[in-house]
Amino acid sequence: MTPEMIESAEARLSGIVRETPLLTSPFIDEIAGRRVHVKAECLQHTGSFKFRGGWSAVSALDAGVRSRGVIAFSSGNHAQGVALAAARHGVPAVIIMPADAPRIKIDNTRALGAEVVLYDRATENRDQIGDRISSERGLTLIRPYDDPHVIAGQATVGLEIARQFQGGPTEVLVCCGGGGLTSGIALGLEMRAPALRVRPVEPEGFDDVARSLATGTRQSNERLAGSVCDAILTPSPGELTFPILQRLSGPGLTVTDDECLRAVALAAQRLRIVLEPGGAAALAAAIFQPDNIEGEDVIVVATGGNVDGELFSSALMK
Amino acid sequence: MTPEMIESAEARLSGIVRETPLLTSPFIDEIAGRRVHVKAECLQHTGSFKFRGGWSAVSALDAGVRSRGVIAFSSGNHAQGVALAAARHGVPAVIIMPADAPRIKIDNTRALGAEVVLYDRATENRDQIGDRISSERGLTLIRPYDDPHVIAGQATVGLEIARQFQGGPTEVLVCCGGGGLTSGIALGLEMRAPALRVRPVEPEGFDDVARSLATGTRQSNERLAGSVCDAILTPSPGELTFPILQRLSGPGLTVTDDECLRAVALAAQRLRIVLEPGGAAALAAAIFQPDNIEGEDVIVVATGGNVDGELFSSALMK
Repeated sequence: MTPEMIESAEARLSGIVRETPLLTSPFIDEIAGRRVHVKAECLQHTGSFKFRGGWSAVSALDAGVRSRGVIAFSSGNHAQGVALAAARHGVPAVIIMPADAPRIKIDNTRALGAEVVLYDRATENRDQIGDRISSERGLTLIRPYDDPHVIAGQATVGLEIARQFQGGPTEVLVCCGGGGLTSGIALGLEMRAPALRVRPVEPEGFDDVARSLATGTRQSNERLAGSVCDAILTPSPGELTFPILQRLSGPGLTVTDDECLRAVALAAQRLRIVLEPGGAAALAAAIFQPDNIEGEDVIVVATGGNVDGELFSSALMK
Repeated sequence: MTPEMIESAEARLSGIVRETPLLTSPFIDEIAGRRVHVKAECLQHTGSFKFRGGWSAVSALDAGVRSRGVIAFSSGNHAQGVALAAARHGVPAVIIMPADAPRIKIDNTRALGAEVVLYDRATENRDQIGDRISSERGLTLIRPYDDPHVIAGQATVGLEIARQFQGGPTEVLVCCGGGGLTSGIALGLEMRAPALRVRPVEPEGFDDVARSLATGTRQSNERLAGSVCDAILTPSPGELTFPILQRLSGPGLTVTDDECLRAVALAAQRLRIVLEPGGAAALAAAIFQPDNIEGEDVIVVATGGNVDGELFSSALMK
């Protein structure tokens, strides 16, 4: 990973991805006890930051290789990001999704023109399925986070924050699964706003990145399901992402499902944005764990907004 | 109203109001049968475009006059816009609101530091109450739409659309109450994007502007309550706004409450923004009345997102 790779991704994404706004609310500031700046990536195309990495990776492929198509495995947001990037490049996409992924994510991925292959989280290994199909059809696998071009695409969130936020040393809380976004933002901020420092936020029971940072070695989660934060349940930090986080990230934070659902409700009421629970984890940490954060300001990345209507409605009633 | 007044408002609002994004969704485009560009003013400070007009009017006052305070009457969005503008200028604000306004709007207005005076829509005249209190206390009345500085502030939505939208002749649908926003956008577009033409969108039974444009004289509504679109129920087009609309606006469109609620649900699911029913009227027209619109593209202004949780949840289940 070099600054040149990130600048190249920035150029490829220019005019394609949306520059998402940095939102604030005096009501949220009051609860959090500091000024909270919310990077609303739920407003990105496909409803999450994943379109950045998807576009970056698909657009970086050699045209001949790309024309044979791409494949991705994802609980839904990376799926949609890759599906749209492939569709706009006019190439086929196969997406391998867990059968228990939110309905809206499966439907959207199909509607974006991808071929969706469902698998059972408990009994099947998505990596093996992905490898088999990609070798059979000559598809290129676009990994959700352990891919330099994907990380470089996600880094553009950091470049935008560097442009949009005016202030001194500040923590940047990021909803974290495999660490592609968190490490990408860390690299982007190192280039353009080195006073800002990322901190990963994970659901309770799925805090592999926090434990890995604390122990200095890559730790795994015992489970891969059992939280409403489906978007950020991953087995362990990536091989590429972990060294970047070790070098640039602050300690991890952990939030409960209930805190995430209450953050979803506050984001709707106070910022007028729709978040999925996993996309509200960083906001939940800022609002409900003020003592674990430093500084007069905090930046949180609201990573996605693909939530089923029923779950969203139940969160609103919290 | 001169272009110079609008340019002056633009300068006073610069760095204060948010430039809101122009959002799109391939799913909404497919239902609407054309590309729909949604100007998301629900992401504006206080959750609606009204902060623009409020700031414009309060900032235009002579400092001595302003220091005595301001007063406004509003069902809630103008209330919050003026309250925040006054608070940031450090001057008192009295806001006269109907007692049946959405709870969230009353609560927010108070939380923004304003003194709220409630009145009964059916039996009391808000103009008379406003005049009495303002003369008693030396407050300056900030009218919701029939004020040149308010119209100039709302015109900045048109200036932003002119910058953000690349394309030929296109209709710009605007949720319309007294016509302050619609006439302001019309003036802004006349200055910077004359190929774009506004069209007001009103709730069924409250189509005073559409009927006024059709007949050439200012018409009134029979009722002032009875639609979920509380933000845009006004007695008749303004004295200042109507001549502007006569000169620059296309014919009005009318939508049902049910169409607005279904547009609220689609905006949440497909654009990840929270709209109130009255703020979704223009989007509803674009989605459900494609035959009444011309062109390959349409721009809709999503004017506000201050909706009570229960109503919002019920819309999501549509």
